[in-house]
Formats: sequence, structure tokens, C-alpha cells
Amino acid sequence: MGVLRLAHVDVRTPDLDLSTAYYTEVMGLSVTARTADAVYFKCWDEEDHHSLRLRYNPRTGLDLFSFRVEAEDDLGALETAVERYGCHVTRVSRGESVGQGESLRFEIPSGQTMELVWDVERVGNLLGKRSPAPVPPPGLPGIAPPRLDHMLIHAEEVAETGSFFRDVLGFRLTEQVLDGNGHQLGIWLQRSGRVHDIAVVNGPNGAMHHWAYWLDDWDQVRKAADILAFNGVQIDQGPTRHGVTRGNTIYFFDPLGIRNEVFTGGYKPDPDFEAITWTEDNFGKGLFYYENVLSQRFLTMHT
Amino acid sequence: MGVLRLAHVDVRTPDLDLSTAYYTEVMGLSVTARTADAVYFKCWDEEDHHSLRLRYNPRTGLDLFSFRVEAEDDLGALETAVERYGCHVTRVSRGESVGQGESLRFEIPSGQTMELVWDVERVGNLLGKRSPAPVPPPGLPGIAPPRLDHMLIHAEEVAETGSFFRDVLGFRLTEQVLDGNGHQLGIWLQRSGRVHDIAVVNGPNGAMHHWAYWLDDWDQVRKAADILAFNGVQIDQGPTRHGVTRGNTIYFFDPLGIRNEVFTGGYKPDPDFEAITWTEDNFGKGLFYYENVLSQRFLTMHT
Amino acid sequence: MGVLRLAHVDVRTPDLDLSTAYYTEVMGLSVTARTADAVYFKCWDEEDHHSLRLRYNPRTGLDLFSFRVEAEDDLGALETAVERYGCHVTRVSRGESVGQGESLRFEIPSGQTMELVWDVERVGNLLGKRSPAPVPPPGLPGIAPPRLDHMLIHAEEVAETGSFFRDVLGFRLTEQVLDGNGHQLGIWLQRSGRVHDIAVVNGPNGAMHHWAYWLDDWDQVRKAADILAFNGVQIDQGPTRHGVTRGNTIYFFDPLGIRNEVFTGGYKPDPDFEAITWTEDNFGKGLFYYENVLSQRFLTMHT
Amino acid sequence: MGVLRLAHVDVRTPDLDLSTAYYTEVMGLSVTARTADAVYFKCWDEEDHHSLRLRYNPRTGLDLFSFRVEAEDDLGALETAVERYGCHVTRVSRGESVGQGESLRFEIPSGQTMELVWDVERVGNLLGKRSPAPVPPPGLPGIAPPRLDHMLIHAEEVAETGSFFRDVLGFRLTEQVLDGNGHQLGIWLQRSGRVHDIAVVNGPNGAMHHWAYWLDDWDQVRKAADILAFNGVQIDQGPTRHGVTRGNTIYFFDPLGIRNEVFTGGYKPDPDFEAITWTEDNFGKGLFYYENVLSQRFLTMHT
Repeated sequence: MGVLRLAHVDVRTPDLDLSTAYYTEVMGLSVTARTADAVYFKCWDEEDHHSLRLRYNPRTGLDLFSFRVEAEDDLGALETAVERYGCHVTRVSRGESVGQGESLRFEIPSGQTMELVWDVERVGNLLGKRSPAPVPPPGLPGIAPPRLDHMLIHAEEVAETGSFFRDVLGFRLTEQVLDGNGHQLGIWLQRSGRVHDIAVVNGPNGAMHHWAYWLDDWDQVRKAADILAFNGVQIDQGPTRHGVTRGNTIYFFDPLGIRNEVFTGGYKPDPDFEAITWTEDNFGKGLFYYENVLSQRFLTMHT
Repeated sequence: MGVLRLAHVDVRTPDLDLSTAYYTEVMGLSVTARTADAVYFKCWDEEDHHSLRLRYNPRTGLDLFSFRVEAEDDLGALETAVERYGCHVTRVSRGESVGQGESLRFEIPSGQTMELVWDVERVGNLLGKRSPAPVPPPGLPGIAPPRLDHMLIHAEEVAETGSFFRDVLGFRLTEQVLDGNGHQLGIWLQRSGRVHDIAVVNGPNGAMHHWAYWLDDWDQVRKAADILAFNGVQIDQGPTRHGVTRGNTIYFFDPLGIRNEVFTGGYKPDPDFEAITWTEDNFGKGLFYYENVLSQRFLTMHT
Repeated sequence: MGVLRLAHVDVRTPDLDLSTAYYTEVMGLSVTARTADAVYFKCWDEEDHHSLRLRYNPRTGLDLFSFRVEAEDDLGALETAVERYGCHVTRVSRGESVGQGESLRFEIPSGQTMELVWDVERVGNLLGKRSPAPVPPPGLPGIAPPRLDHMLIHAEEVAETGSFFRDVLGFRLTEQVLDGNGHQLGIWLQRSGRVHDIAVVNGPNGAMHHWAYWLDDWDQVRKAADILAFNGVQIDQGPTRHGVTRGNTIYFFDPLGIRNEVFTGGYKPDPDFEAITWTEDNFGKGLFYYENVLSQRFLTMHT
Repeated sequence: MGVLRLAHVDVRTPDLDLSTAYYTEVMGLSVTARTADAVYFKCWDEEDHHSLRLRYNPRTGLDLFSFRVEAEDDLGALETAVERYGCHVTRVSRGESVGQGESLRFEIPSGQTMELVWDVERVGNLLGKRSPAPVPPPGLPGIAPPRLDHMLIHAEEVAETGSFFRDVLGFRLTEQVLDGNGHQLGIWLQRSGRVHDIAVVNGPNGAMHHWAYWLDDWDQVRKAADILAFNGVQIDQGPTRHGVTRGNTIYFFDPLGIRNEVFTGGYKPDPDFEAITWTEDNFGKGLFYYENVLSQRFLTMHT
């Protein structure tokens, strides 16, 4: 019971048409709804209403990120816990948000707005529930990832934000990078049984580093790189491998400069998995195992 | 809370040396303990004491299969539930089983012995917890899967066994095959958030069809096939793709005729995932999507 | 100098529309010309006019197969050699065949019609010659192989047909299967520096077993299998690996029952490569390394 | 007839033990001979005596590169052609070079020493000629490429060196990069029917940029990257894709700073293939399609 997985990311874009063209034609998401100032997207294997909302705003930025909880009752229990920690929680009623029912919203210690939701509108995946083909129809446009995977946010006080996620929301630590004084520079946290659902790395409060889509294997990573280059998309790093999480990855920028990732691999931690610890001098290969380098662009650019 | 994942499979072999040679040199597991009549094995990425026990016995067969629960308290709650269903539960004390503490044992409606355990001896994976390499050392012998994935057992009454797993043990149905009268011929069940942890298919009570190791991708599937053929192992089916679960797979027989599988792929069901239903006339491609055939050897041979 | 590579295969089909739909939508070839009774196809990376001609005829069958020679002068030299061997050679003038200039035609000892051509119409590949993208545009329909690779024909007297290809046409033997008396059951021959351009296996004179398209890797083989199954195409064998040639492969049937193959892998023989010899008792794994079986359907069905 | 393919590369190393350890344990070559000051290596699928010679010398550098010719008579014809061009040719007699018979040596216009040889000692590959396994034995150490593929040398006058390779030695141009004045900055040349056997890029005369080993696919490229990182080898660029040649690649440095490449992919040019032309402003993506960048380290470091 409790928090289940990353549900959707809501971001602002100054050019909704351009962003929409990119997320449909290059990333290969499908549009599930449009309102006056926003477009909603999902991946082909996702069953919920959306996993990405783009909203027009003159300034690029993160509106919020939303995690789904496992049971309806979890909302009440988590509301109590978050308020006890000292965060003000707002209940957003059914009808106020497109594609979902009641949710909780609050500001986490590092300043981002987080949402918890259980009641999401089901629209179904592309394959259906009756003797479905095990692969999507050939010829889906773009990268066409099956689903949203995780995100990475910044925090000035990584340990404090980590405590909030762990002690209040029940996340579990899978990996951490410590500086020479034993302070956390970065943490990787999971609730879904995958290697991470959210990561927090030292940086300005309120900032988002990237969100990531799942790909099924290394060959899909190459296909993604081919599609990105074919479309003139700027690749930030990769195809490469992470030391942290073991995953294979590409980082790249959407047309408005927001960093996206495609990710595959990782491992399957038990809830009582003993976390992995990286020393700061190994952070280079923790970040990019092949390059063994702390890329300044990677570490300093964010949304 | 509750059942977490498949922990270990305990089988009997009339030739412990031959079986041990196969599971180490061809499958690529490592031996973690030996007793007078048994050998214990684990995969390179597993942290627990073992995921396979081979015990000498003149007749090949399944001793039991064991699932790990998430918390120590789960044992008591599940004991109550299983006894309330009408199964007799035996508590196996710490010290009676190699590599683990107290456990529950009981016979499920289809006649196999099932075990539940929380307290397992941690021996650690091959990579460690301090700035570990994200890949195992090059040159591991054999197929070297990272971990055990799932198993398939037979039941004369699939629906009855399914009810036990779902109502008593809290498993969730991800896929089912129905005959023309709407009776379940096969069911796929999960607790771990993966596409299945155990499957139950119509067949003789007490029988096991196979257990499966996880591989990371389709290329590892080919590598496995190359290693199997190189060692003269009889392949039952594959490399191919399942319709049910979407996974890529090879089935093959160990030297004593016990069926093994290597498996990759699948999807990521939420706990409230609406199950997929296959009609009987689609079972052929549900089983083997490329061949579209109900192989008699596959359906009738078991342990 | 001399014979260069397989250029095109010309076959008959009783349903030109159905065959055309399959070769464009499932195989993913493009149509380059149509006449009253024939359709011409090429792969996306081929620069010549066509590599497949389908001609309407009430009865399925092979019209001819065509090899390109390296230089214009090769035609005269090869005409002399073929006639000296005792085959009657017909010169087909420019204008008589769509998409190519003058060619030679003759019946080989096993009864099939073979053509040699140098002057082929160039239509260019999909990428062009000016700073081209290294990958085709995303979203090509079907399997979309880059090019034709090789073919396999039958012969009642394999050794005699082999002598013709080797002594008269300059092909080189890369692999052979010998029966217990040392007679050739099958031979694999190359001119292009790849593992084979044509193979000859014991069977009825005049018959064709299959032609094959090149795929770039094992992942493309899976993608091909997914597309075939998605379209309900009957797979004959595979995805699997050959012992002979080492290639990865799938065999399957077009809608009129003509066998196609997709193939990748192999090695790179020098012109003086010492041929590999398979004994008859190893032919099973020579054919299909994973299955280790002489499939009767594979050995007895042909066009 | 004529030049066939790259046969071996002979380089100098100040630390023969360290270099030998790297080329056997990390690259995964096998040692076929040792003399007082040199070690000879081959890949597992190569049948000739060696494809790499390392010779002790206080200063790292290229001794020579050697191409095999198709027939014994080619040596005389090519000697005449090279001398007519104005290069002095030395005949090296059988017995003077380890692992091969008579050869020709001469300095090409860009200053490197080139060798031509036909008579090479055959030692056979790892699989043999009798019903061989189609895959090498599992567990070969290191990257274990099947064979040497191509090399890249520098020339102050690319066009002049290109003319020598094309007009005198019969190489064919597959791709070229032109500056704004139409001068060649880089050329890719083939004799073997593959996309390139040698490339020449603007840079100091006498210098070598890298030589490359063939890998079978993108998954082998990742495996190579994993092995390189595991061994702490410095990667120069990749895993990535070339625009020129379309290949997938990693560049990296041996322990003495000599650049190696692993390469897969490409296409299959006919002898009369019309060359592809890249404009200088597209050179970035011609070099590295994903990064779209002219890496200074890549362009300026050489041996």
C-alpha cells in the first residue's frame, strides 16, 4: 500500500504547437486530450489518461509531478503524514483536473509541487484485453516508448528531501552518491520495485533535471538515437550506460530545451534491498560508465 | 505487504553430479552450499542464499517452491489465511532449512508443496554495494542469468488453484485463457509488479511444468540458445515470443528432463490491472506467437 | 572480374495483386515498375531497377534468376564458357527486359533458367549520394530489408551443378554437406565475398527452395518475426541459427506458398578459403543449429 | 584480381608486455608467435598467421600496414604499377617476415610504408573445417572480435594519396568529404566489397589514426564498451554511429595511446558504386551522426 509509481509530469512550454509536434512525431506519444491551453499525452502501452501534460506558459518549467497511490485509502493516510511533516496539502477535487479524480498537492522540501492521485481515468493501451498482439502495430511514429519510467529533480539539501520521500512517503533508497564528508550528493529512490522512480541530485530547489521513458532494450536505444539524429534533436549524452542503476540511456533536449531521457535495464530491488553507495571520486563512472566523466552540461542545465 | 516474489525452487534429481555440472557450467549458476544430499545455487545478481536447491532422489520431481514475503509479520497473517482456507500449515523452524530462517509450508489445492519465507540469509550479489561495476565480470561461464523469474505449475482445477492464490495469498491475475465454456485453462498471476510470478495451466495435480530465469534482452536469448546448442542441450521451443506476457523465450530440458526457461520482456501491470483474456482458439499464438501452434510436447511433458 | 552477385529473382504468381500486397506491405519492398502482367520490386538500399519480378501466371514457379557481372566484357567471356560447357545461350537484347540492357540466358544443368547481366538501370537507393542519413527514414512499412542476399535451388545431381557454377562461372565453394559415400548433398557457393550467393541442395531439377533478404542483425530478425506473426504469415522455421553459414534466419511462406528467408550474419571468406565440410549425421545442426533436426517440410517443400 | 583486403598492421610499442596484456585480455586476440622483440596476434575467426604485429621500440608508431592480394601473379603486376608511379619497391623474401612469404614494400605518397603479400601462413580459425560450431566457444576473454576490418591513415594531400590507391592499386572510392573549394578532406576506399578497407583523412604525412576490428552487431558494441569500461580503458568516442559508412562504432586508446576502433554495419557497394559526397558543413554528422560534432581530440590525436 502507499505510493505506487510515477503517473504524470506536467510542464510548461512557450510553444505548445512545437512541443506537441515533437512529443508526437519524434517521441511518438499520442494525444489523449486538448484544452484551451494544454495538451495531454500518453505512451502506447499506458492505460491511464495521460503521463505528460504540456501547458502553455511564456516560461518553460515544471508545474508538478504526480505519483499514483495503490489504494483509494492511501490518500487520506498520506495526507496526514505530509501535513504532520509540516507541508500544506491541497485537495484537488474531481473535475478540476483533466483525466483524473481527487488528488493531493503539496510542495516538497526542495520546492517542487508534487501530486498524489489514485483515481485516474482509464483509456486503455493500444493492444486491448482480448487475445492481444504482443507487439504494437508496426509503423508507430517516432521513438514510441511503452511507458513513462522515472524522473530526476534537484534539491539544495538532498538528504532533507530524501528524508521526506523515505520517511513520509515510504520511498526506499536504492543508490546514493556521498561526498568526502558523507553528505548525499544524489539519491535514487523507488516504490514500484524497479531500480528508481525518482532521483534527487544536488542543485537548485524547484528545478527538474529530466524525466525518462522506458525502452525495452539496447537496440531500442539505438533506434531512438537514430530517430533523434534524423530529426536533428540535440543529444546531451549517450547512447551510454549508467554506473548508478546499470541502465542504458540517452539524454537529449526537446525543442524548448527540456531534457528528456530514454532508459532501459536496471535491476529489481527487494523492499529491504541494502542501498548501493558511490563515493564522490567514482561519481564520473556512476553517471556515465563509458565516459567516466562529470559532464558540466549534464550537471548544470535544468528546467 | 504480503507475498513478494518467487524465492527458490527445490527439485529432486537422480544424478546430483550431472545436474550440478549442468546448472553451473551450462546455466551458469554458482554453488552457495552443499550438504550430504543437496546442492544450493544462486544467480550472479541474487543477494539471497539460493534460488535453486537440487536434492538427490531416485526419482525426478518437485519438492516445493518458495515465495518470499515482504515483512516478518506477513507470515502470521498468511498462516491464518491459509489455515482458514482449510490447508494444514507446518512451521519449519530456523535451522531446519539451509540458508533461511522460519518458514511456512502447506499443500496448495493442486497438490504441490508451497513455502513462504521472510528471513533469508543474505550472501550478496557478485557486484557488491560500493561503487559497483554495472555489469558482471566478463567471462562468467554459461548462460549466467541475473535472477530467477517465475514458474509454471499444473492443476486439474485451474480456477480453484487460482482462487487460492488470489483470495488467500493476494496474487493478482494478469492473463487467462478460457475455453469455449468460459473455464480457465491457464492463468498468469503476479505479486512482484512483473507480468507473472507464477502461472497455472491445466494438467495433472502435483506437476511442475518449468521454472524460468530472467534474461536482460533478446540478444541474451540468442546467446543462451548458442550456449545450449553448443552444449548439446535439447531445446523444446524457441527462441520465440509468447503472446501471453509478450515475453521472448526459450524452453529446454536439463539433463534429467526437467524443463527450464529463459525469459525476457513483458510489461508492468498495476495492482488493479484489468486482466487480459485469451480465447481457446487463440491459445496457439498466445503460447507461441511466431509458430501459432499448441505443441503437444510442450503441453504434455512435465516434472 | 566475372560474376558479381545475385541481381534479381523472377517468379510467377497466380495472384499478382495478393503477391504485390504482401511484398510491399509485409516484406516492405517498393514497386519500381508495372507492366500488363508483371510488377518489379526493389529493397530500400538497392540502387538497381529491381531485385524481384512477379509475373502473372496460373501456376506458381521460378522464371529465372539473374546474376550481375562485374564488367561489360564479362558477358562475352562467360557466354563462350557456358557454350563450351554445352549449354545453349540466348542473348536478350536491350529493350526486351524491363530495367536492364543486354543479358545472357541459359539453362543450368539442374534445369533452372539463369541470366547474366551487366547493364542495369540505376534508380538509386532511398538515401541518395549527398550527405545522406545513415538510416532509412523511420516508419518504412513491413520488414524493409536493405537488399536481396542469396537464393537456394534444387538439383538432382548437386555435384554436377556445382561443377558448372565453379568451373564455368567461377563460383567458389564455402561449405558442403557430404553423405556417407562422400557425395555432395548440398553446396554453398559465393562470388561476392560473402558466405554464399547461391546454394544447391539435393532435390528435383528445376525447383527453387527460397530466396533470402539480408537483415542487419538479430534484432531485425525479431522485428521481422513480429511483423510476420502480426500479419498472420506462416513461419516455416525460426528465428534460429544455421550451422552452415553461421547465419541467423527465419523461413516463411508468401501468400502463394513460395518460401522466403530473412538472413543475417555469416563470415567473410577469401577467394582461396578452404571449404567447410559437414558430414550427413551433422546435417541437422548444420541446417538448424538450435533445433538439430532435418525438418521434412523444410526439405521437401519447394517452388 | 588485385588487392584483396587489409591483412595486418605492424606497430611499435615501448612496453611490449603491457601492450600484449591489453591486446590479449581486453581486446581478446590470441598470440600466434613471439620473437625476441615482437609478438604476433590474430582474431578468433582469422585463418592467417596474424593480423597485428607489435614490435618493441622506445617510440610508439606505425611500422607498416599490409594488404593481401588475390593471386600470386598480382604481386608482379602491382610492383610494375607502383614503380611506374615512381615509388621504390623492395621485395622482402620468404623467411624475412614471420608468418608469410614474399612481399612487396614501398612508401605511399603520404609517407607510410605499405606492404603487399599473397603467400600467408595459414593457421586456421578457432572453429575448424569439419561440421564446425557456428559460434566460438563461450567464454573467450575480452572483446574477441572475429577479424580485422579496416584502417585510417593521414595524408597532407588526401587527393594525391587517393589517386595512388585508386589509379595504381585499384581501390574504389565509396565516400568523400569535400571542403568548400571541392578539395577532398577525407576519402573512404574499398577493394573487398565492404564499405571501406582504408580511409585517408587530412593530417600529417606518415601518421596513422586507428585500425578497426569488426564486430557482428550493436549488441557486441555494447559488450565491447562494457569490457573497455570494466578494464578502465579510455574511450575516445562512442558507442555511436557514423554518418560516413553508416557503421556503429567505439573509438578508444590502447595503454600506449594508440587509437583502436570496433566497428559494425555499413553497406555493400558494387565495384561501380557511385561515391557518396559529404559537404564540409555536414562533416560533423558524417563523423558522428548522434553527436554531430567535429571532436578535436578525434581529429588531432594520432600515432
